[in-house]
Amino acid sequence: MIAIDAMGGDFAPRIPVLGALHVARQGICVALYGDEKKIISILDSAEKSWKKLPITIKHCSETISMFEQPSKAVMRKKDASLVRAARALENEDASALVSAGNSGAVLACGVLIVARVYGVERPAIGQFIPTKKGSIFCLDLGANVDCKPKYLEQFAIIGSEYVRLKKGIENPRVALLSNGVEPYKGSQLVKDSFDLLKSQKKINFVGNLESRYLFDDHADVLVCDGFAGNILLKSIEGTAHFVMYWIGKKMSSFLIGKILSKLIFPFFCRLRKKNEQRCAGGALLLGVNKPIVLAHGASDLSSFIKAIEFAYDIEQKDFVAKLNKRLELQLGGRKKIAIVRKVKSLFKS
Amino acid sequence: MIAIDAMGGDFAPRIPVLGALHVARQGICVALYGDEKKIISILDSAEKSWKKLPITIKHCSETISMFEQPSKAVMRKKDASLVRAARALENEDASALVSAGNSGAVLACGVLIVARVYGVERPAIGQFIPTKKGSIFCLDLGANVDCKPKYLEQFAIIGSEYVRLKKGIENPRVALLSNGVEPYKGSQLVKDSFDLLKSQKKINFVGNLESRYLFDDHADVLVCDGFAGNILLKSIEGTAHFVMYWIGKKMSSFLIGKILSKLIFPFFCRLRKKNEQRCAGGALLLGVNKPIVLAHGASDLSSFIKAIEFAYDIEQKDFVAKLNKRLELQLGGRKKIAIVRKVKSLFKS
Repeated sequence: MIAIDAMGGDFAPRIPVLGALHVARQGICVALYGDEKKIISILDSAEKSWKKLPITIKHCSETISMFEQPSKAVMRKKDASLVRAARALENEDASALVSAGNSGAVLACGVLIVARVYGVERPAIGQFIPTKKGSIFCLDLGANVDCKPKYLEQFAIIGSEYVRLKKGIENPRVALLSNGVEPYKGSQLVKDSFDLLKSQKKINFVGNLESRYLFDDHADVLVCDGFAGNILLKSIEGTAHFVMYWIGKKMSSFLIGKILSKLIFPFFCRLRKKNEQRCAGGALLLGVNKPIVLAHGASDLSSFIKAIEFAYDIEQKDFVAKLNKRLELQLGGRKKIAIVRKVKSLFKS
Repeated sequence: MIAIDAMGGDFAPRIPVLGALHVARQGICVALYGDEKKIISILDSAEKSWKKLPITIKHCSETISMFEQPSKAVMRKKDASLVRAARALENEDASALVSAGNSGAVLACGVLIVARVYGVERPAIGQFIPTKKGSIFCLDLGANVDCKPKYLEQFAIIGSEYVRLKKGIENPRVALLSNGVEPYKGSQLVKDSFDLLKSQKKINFVGNLESRYLFDDHADVLVCDGFAGNILLKSIEGTAHFVMYWIGKKMSSFLIGKILSKLIFPFFCRLRKKNEQRCAGGALLLGVNKPIVLAHGASDLSSFIKAIEFAYDIEQKDFVAKLNKRLELQLGGRKKIAIVRKVKSLFKS
């Protein structure tokens, strides 16, 4: 069962509800958390026989907007769609959570409700970015805007384990995002982190990487603080969009360009569609106990569907549990984990 | 006279020397600082009658590499090409300086040798980035990797004055680079700077801007710390290059795409050339007393020529003096400036 925050995102509840409907048609069980009336009205107008599909609706009286202070909102709004969905995940009423809402609030739910993996100081948002030869896994992309060097050290270990598990690369190359390749370059945080990463034996550190060379396959994992990572990710998106816009505009300003652009337009559309199909549609929150997928706030229907499918795929493969076991071993230490497990089992019994 | 650091940059001394030769043919006076033998050998092989051109060579026994600690290198290497060129600028033997070398060292020369404008706490690197409707002036792009809110406040004033003088926009819109538009978003630095910028009456602050929307003409000036700015600038360059690479690769994987790409290739080349011609080839160091232009470390010949032409244009228009007068007024305060000028004139007499 995938719990979906029906009230999160720029086009909520329409997009989350229609996305849920789409995957339910494929047989994926979904639970929609949000305003019952609105959800039913959207479902009714989209599919008359939706009640036969594996869709559950959980009415919630509150929502968390994009403009609210994340942790405060999560603490106060007990009946918010996102909070209720996170509780369902925690109580094992759901096996994964998807939200396109306030990303800070999703992170707060991950920490305050679902809880961190033992040993992880700060959960991070990670995503693969395509490169010339494959892809590079970048983290953190926005969960922790102010970081300490030890957080970046942990991100390097988390990223390495993720890539090892996902791609089967035995010894992934880890780079640190900086304003130059030289070891003395970077903010104080980057310089301090450089020294830590260099001495960390659990990773294969290859040095600093400039954002200009991100696509040139110099590394498998890129580590940065959430602020720099978010600037990086969004500027890539913005630039890719701008370059396509610019080409289109320039071409249509000449007659011959106009004719050529008409010819290549369907080709571009096909390319774009193919590329979009490759993307996950959402990013996984790394370092929390259960699978939480953050979809883009401005997700359209196809992106949101992909985010749910991504969550479903992860859940089916038990990916998060496998990853977390590795993270516990790497970050929590074997002995400490044994003690924590014993204490937990005592409480349960 | 434009002082050129002949030993700075990835392709030094070849590119700086050939760039200087090119502009000297147009009648621009240049002084090349660096290894005399190497410079003469390049000039001899490129143009037999170069001695008739307005080229001066100043032999320097040292160079500052990309891997040296900037300020230490500037302090120690008195006979480095960059240091000598900066001294020439300070002594009015040259009217502008161009270097593609270690940007930290160029900045250190700006502060330690050429000196800051009265009232400016930290010089910044600023550059126009093209947008859908025009361009946005971004600063700082790498001079100050660790900033305080008051530096960002000054960058906002410097950027506003620059845009006012360059584009004639009376009340330029100033935005702050962040990971979200909401006022509570951003690193601690950004949040603190937001409050400062909001209360600063000398600028027209329009709030936070995400890097995704950089190209959508929401602002005329974008303020950020040098680390985030550098990540932003370089990821734009890297992404634009990658998108073009990706289109080319994908198109050549189909027969019809191959034919179309052959057809549009000359068109793309023309577009690219046109766009390159619009770019300055270098960025101005803002807030120092004389014109210093930082060219890209990996500059090719045409970029380096454009950087020299940019420096020449600025010098001819007395742009830096005009800008600095405004900056002194905005940042130094009228009374204080009068005192500083009096003291200076006393020392001179």
